[in-house]
Amino acid sequence: MPSAPRSFALVGRFTDPRVADSAATAAAHLATRGIATLVVDDVEGAAFDAGGSAVARVAEHELTGRAEVVLAIGGDGTLLYAARLVAHRGIPLLGINRGRLGFLTDVLPQDITASIDAVLQGDCDFDERPLLEARLERAGGERLTQLALNDVVMQKYETGRMLDFESWIDGRFVNSHGADGMVVASATGSTAYALSCGGPIVEPHLDVVVVAPICPHTLSDRPIVVPRRSTVEVMLIDRPGTRAHVTVDGVVMADLVAGDRLAIAPSNHAIRLLHPKGYDYYRLLRSKLHWGRGGHAHQR
Amino acid sequence: MPSAPRSFALVGRFTDPRVADSAATAAAHLATRGIATLVVDDVEGAAFDAGGSAVARVAEHELTGRAEVVLAIGGDGTLLYAARLVAHRGIPLLGINRGRLGFLTDVLPQDITASIDAVLQGDCDFDERPLLEARLERAGGERLTQLALNDVVMQKYETGRMLDFESWIDGRFVNSHGADGMVVASATGSTAYALSCGGPIVEPHLDVVVVAPICPHTLSDRPIVVPRRSTVEVMLIDRPGTRAHVTVDGVVMADLVAGDRLAIAPSNHAIRLLHPKGYDYYRLLRSKLHWGRGGHAHQR
Amino acid sequence: MPSAPRSFALVGRFTDPRVADSAATAAAHLATRGIATLVVDDVEGAAFDAGGSAVARVAEHELTGRAEVVLAIGGDGTLLYAARLVAHRGIPLLGINRGRLGFLTDVLPQDITASIDAVLQGDCDFDERPLLEARLERAGGERLTQLALNDVVMQKYETGRMLDFESWIDGRFVNSHGADGMVVASATGSTAYALSCGGPIVEPHLDVVVVAPICPHTLSDRPIVVPRRSTVEVMLIDRPGTRAHVTVDGVVMADLVAGDRLAIAPSNHAIRLLHPKGYDYYRLLRSKLHWGRGGHAHQR
Amino acid sequence: MPSAPRSFALVGRFTDPRVADSAATAAAHLATRGIATLVVDDVEGAAFDAGGSAVARVAEHELTGRAEVVLAIGGDGTLLYAARLVAHRGIPLLGINRGRLGFLTDVLPQDITASIDAVLQGDCDFDERPLLEARLERAGGERLTQLALNDVVMQKYETGRMLDFESWIDGRFVNSHGADGMVVASATGSTAYALSCGGPIVEPHLDVVVVAPICPHTLSDRPIVVPRRSTVEVMLIDRPGTRAHVTVDGVVMADLVAGDRLAIAPSNHAIRLLHPKGYDYYRLLRSKLHWGRGGHAHQR
Repeated sequence: MPSAPRSFALVGRFTDPRVADSAATAAAHLATRGIATLVVDDVEGAAFDAGGSAVARVAEHELTGRAEVVLAIGGDGTLLYAARLVAHRGIPLLGINRGRLGFLTDVLPQDITASIDAVLQGDCDFDERPLLEARLERAGGERLTQLALNDVVMQKYETGRMLDFESWIDGRFVNSHGADGMVVASATGSTAYALSCGGPIVEPHLDVVVVAPICPHTLSDRPIVVPRRSTVEVMLIDRPGTRAHVTVDGVVMADLVAGDRLAIAPSNHAIRLLHPKGYDYYRLLRSKLHWGRGGHAHQR
Repeated sequence: MPSAPRSFALVGRFTDPRVADSAATAAAHLATRGIATLVVDDVEGAAFDAGGSAVARVAEHELTGRAEVVLAIGGDGTLLYAARLVAHRGIPLLGINRGRLGFLTDVLPQDITASIDAVLQGDCDFDERPLLEARLERAGGERLTQLALNDVVMQKYETGRMLDFESWIDGRFVNSHGADGMVVASATGSTAYALSCGGPIVEPHLDVVVVAPICPHTLSDRPIVVPRRSTVEVMLIDRPGTRAHVTVDGVVMADLVAGDRLAIAPSNHAIRLLHPKGYDYYRLLRSKLHWGRGGHAHQR
Repeated sequence: MPSAPRSFALVGRFTDPRVADSAATAAAHLATRGIATLVVDDVEGAAFDAGGSAVARVAEHELTGRAEVVLAIGGDGTLLYAARLVAHRGIPLLGINRGRLGFLTDVLPQDITASIDAVLQGDCDFDERPLLEARLERAGGERLTQLALNDVVMQKYETGRMLDFESWIDGRFVNSHGADGMVVASATGSTAYALSCGGPIVEPHLDVVVVAPICPHTLSDRPIVVPRRSTVEVMLIDRPGTRAHVTVDGVVMADLVAGDRLAIAPSNHAIRLLHPKGYDYYRLLRSKLHWGRGGHAHQR
Repeated sequence: MPSAPRSFALVGRFTDPRVADSAATAAAHLATRGIATLVVDDVEGAAFDAGGSAVARVAEHELTGRAEVVLAIGGDGTLLYAARLVAHRGIPLLGINRGRLGFLTDVLPQDITASIDAVLQGDCDFDERPLLEARLERAGGERLTQLALNDVVMQKYETGRMLDFESWIDGRFVNSHGADGMVVASATGSTAYALSCGGPIVEPHLDVVVVAPICPHTLSDRPIVVPRRSTVEVMLIDRPGTRAHVTVDGVVMADLVAGDRLAIAPSNHAIRLLHPKGYDYYRLLRSKLHWGRGGHAHQR
């Protein structure tokens, strides 16, 4: 950020009282600093009570044209929503959690005003997280694309039958899978759904993606770590009685049928996360995963 | 290899009849091509019967000064032994398996003469695999180092009690572990011991290492993927009745006690593996892990 | 079976040529033995070409009133379908696999006539597999029940959001889960979907069930083995944007919403599987799971 | 316990100040109730300062002849030690933890006097935990046996090489394993080492054992649950450069070499654990495994 930002957008489920409370605190504080506050003019935005503070309500598509920083207040799901809004524009995001730390929303509610001031003073860490692009090419020629911060997931739905599908990496055949689906996660997304599927934790700045089958039938069908520049392709094998869809950062993108091609490739876009100075990824991991405290053995 | 090699070393457990058989085939074929054959002058070398072919028997430390290619005949353990011999010299390695494919020894016995000819004609793929360096600094100041192709493992032994230890990455505290030990594996080693410890498969040319606890007490203590340029440190917490040692590529390096510091860092050395043209890592995975055949869905 | 059976039902997807082929072989062989052959009068039954053999086509609900043995020809899914037909009647089942062994369909196609003769002569093993009962009690009072041989599964569908739910065993609160769902598997079903969810292999005659979360958010949320006589209850926590359904042996039973109560309890019914003499569960496991051959070390 | 106990033994590492503190509290309280207190006359016993309370110091082998209840003060390891002392005698055990709950030591330090009073008044739950017997038959005919509350473990040591071994259940060959070893755990021991090896949680009163390979080479080599009445046998395959030993409840029993037979069979002995009224196994699990709190959805 070359100069101090003059407008902040607040994003969150304001119908949740804890979110509304943090948002009101933020709006009041921004007002004292002379910063414009924006919210989306939708059901959630309508629920937002700014107290006496001035708040501009704008259409969702206008928000990112007018805000210079986005405050995502809620859980990681809220930050993923905010990331979709700003993905093409590079507007920095600050994530405020409602209660305890999230992987992406790593500011505690009590630190909200201090964090806003830190952002205004440029006294915070910038953390670039590259995005993935999901490309769905239908047998009929239709083409859909979507950007992902965490993951692109192909998954069965509506039936109890697992999917049969094949995977390729950079055009080379990898495996023929029987599974509930497949997660392709960025390094950032490695601690989200992919971790529940047996994937590893990946340092968030590593240029890799994790390709993890979901509940695979074959027990040796394990997660693979490949370069982020790779294109991962997934294609269904036609089976009666199965249905699959694709979700991007937890939101349904489209159905997938045999003959469609789902490709996950690197995007040129990135998300810029803001953290208070002293951000420590391993401290966050220890907190989120109930790891040991320690730090005693090292005396160098 | 700028010019065709003029000398091959054969490395293997020649007391194993299948190894001896493949080695004799190799020696006879090398003789017809006018290439010198060397073996180490030890118990295994003494067991080697070259038939009528000329074979020079040299001391282990002389071998790599005189051989331009090393043929490792056996399993992956034999190739790891050969890798230790050539680690500082960059001599290329060709791995011949005794029966079925190994991750590192990927030439089948029936292809041995064709593979030798391919090497002589320069008609093969070069595959650089960077090494890790294990550095053990004793509390008393002693310092040991060792190069690893697959992995550096710190592990309990002699008692049933798990170890308590702490891990750091690039000087940042990561976690306080209760576990049987810790594996730090290269991308190449990801499919060896680390895979049995729940680690992911890593494409062999990715510049990462896998840090995986062994049978951790805390179930959220999961494998982490970090940059290969990172330094991973492990230090024991003093507990009565525990003992630990460090193994490098499966060979015991030293005991480890509280106060010692074990660091795993990138090495500047690399192993050069030779493969017949058309080497396909994913085909190897499918074969080793009993994956599906498939390849049918993709028609582009 | 007190006396030799006089009628066999054939069950399978006869539109699959391999199934049709085995079924024709069975029908011809049964005719030579003077045994009546029945098939269901539906689309699959209509596809069945018995060659010259006499085959009676009956409605699905009549089949089990008239057949004394059911031959399920296909994969384990076909045997699960046959098990639903006979669950309340105790008619024995023989499972013929189309190609390789299944956990439930453990007769190879080439052994079909020998196995039929063995059944006719009473020269086979009886294997009782107790059933589970899924009971869904809706908030509004509606009550649905279904019998399960393998498993009862509660699972998200249609959205990317995981479910929040709670589990009780015999009225005692167990855990509050965030996961894709939950599998409650019989010992028989332990090697089906539950195994893909990290559950253990359970000897098929153990009186236990496996309660396994599906891709749980919390890594310590592990499978639990409880007595088969236990009642396992699952209740959803209300969250916007989530949907769940219940499947029994892979077939959708109903949707599940917050306020509904899903209980899995022991049934008094059981399935009677027929096996050729010499049935060895561990041999089946070794074959299905690509385990080692071995058997050499034991010399007692 | 037909009548109120008149003597308690205190067992623990009294050199640990927290243990010594709880032990002194117990001894003082027992004195006020007129109950004799005993400790073992060894290094730990010598370290025990009872304050003014009368304490009899007796040889380890005499302790269980004179004590009617054993208080194990420390972690689960201390209770396992106490269990070995009383295994053949059925003397009840009460486990006091030094700080937080253990699976076996489930009384908090602050509840020590109330728990002693509950025991004296017979106001506590009895919890029988059956034992396993490890039988090691050497090729030469020597025979060793040992009782286990948690588990019998066969494991590699001193080298980096995995073990090759075979397993049998009730004389039937199960599998040929390449692994670091094998855990055979009771239901009670399912939450100890076996859980770190990927085994399931087992309700403590289920009559089953868990057979879990340790870091197996083959990924489909998964834990198996078998009846407790089964005999599980393990035999090593001779390989150069490997060493194995057997530990019982974490204590080394003996080395194991090829030709030896290790059998784990049910014992007729059991341990009697005392718990304060209201013992809830699932509450303990939730606490130990950082599970969710919940309990809200169930309103019946």
